[in-house]
Amino acid sequence: MRIKGIIAYNGKDFFGYQIQKNIEQRSVQKEIQDVLSKILNEDVKIYSSGRTDRGVHALNQVIHFDMNKKMSIERLKHALNSLLPDDIFVKSLEEVDDEFHSRFSAKRKEYKYIINLGEYDPINKDLVYNLNHSLDEKLINSSLPLFIGEHSFINFCSNNDGDYVRTIYDFRMVKEGSLLIFYIQGNGFRRYMVRMIIGTLIALGEGKITLEEIDSLINSSLEKRVSFKAPAEGLYLNIVEY
Amino acid sequence: MRIKGIIAYNGKDFFGYQIQKNIEQRSVQKEIQDVLSKILNEDVKIYSSGRTDRGVHALNQVIHFDMNKKMSIERLKHALNSLLPDDIFVKSLEEVDDEFHSRFSAKRKEYKYIINLGEYDPINKDLVYNLNHSLDEKLINSSLPLFIGEHSFINFCSNNDGDYVRTIYDFRMVKEGSLLIFYIQGNGFRRYMVRMIIGTLIALGEGKITLEEIDSLINSSLEKRVSFKAPAEGLYLNIVEY
Repeated sequence: MRIKGIIAYNGKDFFGYQIQKNIEQRSVQKEIQDVLSKILNEDVKIYSSGRTDRGVHALNQVIHFDMNKKMSIERLKHALNSLLPDDIFVKSLEEVDDEFHSRFSAKRKEYKYIINLGEYDPINKDLVYNLNHSLDEKLINSSLPLFIGEHSFINFCSNNDGDYVRTIYDFRMVKEGSLLIFYIQGNGFRRYMVRMIIGTLIALGEGKITLEEIDSLINSSLEKRVSFKAPAEGLYLNIVEY
Repeated sequence: MRIKGIIAYNGKDFFGYQIQKNIEQRSVQKEIQDVLSKILNEDVKIYSSGRTDRGVHALNQVIHFDMNKKMSIERLKHALNSLLPDDIFVKSLEEVDDEFHSRFSAKRKEYKYIINLGEYDPINKDLVYNLNHSLDEKLINSSLPLFIGEHSFINFCSNNDGDYVRTIYDFRMVKEGSLLIFYIQGNGFRRYMVRMIIGTLIALGEGKITLEEIDSLINSSLEKRVSFKAPAEGLYLNIVEY
């Protein structure tokens, strides 16, 4: 029986989603696998829509796993939430067919990024990026359409093998008080891609890079990886669509 | 020279505002005193508008201290924020006359309390009370005026010597999404008083106590301390007025 789950977690005290070689280092995957294996009394491996890095949060991460034991979904959800640590929460579980794969079946992902432009906020220090100064918001907003569509994002992700082409469907910015919040939606994101894009937008708003330079980094074959990367604490995996 | 300071802190990793006998246990007071004494190269003792308990946050706690060293307020503020840990922030410093006392000169205090009525939120687990079920909000709202005015709050605070009479000037409730947020303003609050009042309101909204019972706990000479106390993580010292 294959189960799809939607989970939320506070990334602060994790070395990331993925299980670490050093199992002393907390990971979301290990915490859930351990509890699931204990409840079901069988070895369970979970798969996610993708990793999140150390310090990155998830509002609706999607996972799947297979289980042999007969147990109602509601009881399993309740047991999981009783035994999981307080920084992980299982929002929903449902039975899916065996074709479903949390990573390979994902059609669209949305990330959210929160920047605090106001004075330093110690209360939300792990939940927003404390930039603590203003930005040219109009200029940043005018740059968002540059990212929409299919592009090679080789200049906006970490240096690994593989395919750098991704499609961005939507990229929005909203202001809530002193917070500047971005929502970026695409068919997939490479490692650090959202943080490097947001870091570049901050640099734009600070006058460290121009709209024209960003345009050529996205649209020309120029290979010049940006050096900007916004920190993990402002980043949230928001939605995964199938 | 007497300095008044407004500070914010995230209470999660503190044993409270006040310096602890076991100095291994982090306190806001000790962190600030240590940094101030280092910067000014003299022993500095700080005084606050009042203690906050373990896990309680402050948005605008007020402190004062005396310093002999000549140093500009702006430089001192900058030095403090550079050296303080990231869960404390000095929002402002100003010179005041020697009559000013952060505790004895305070005229009015406002606390804020945040309850999450929606599903468990692991992201904000240290910043809201995760009650995770609905309450009779209308009934709660109708009880707020009972607290306004001068009353003995002996049934709504911890058991200590002294005067239980306090005046509540204002008590409001607002709903923001799944959050129920209370603002309570008074001339002072005894230990646990806000948390016991909020705990009682939650009990009211759950049908565990009636409006009439609350009325008699406030307005009769009946001594029957309530057993309800909302947890620390939802509580914020919001404003202190002078």
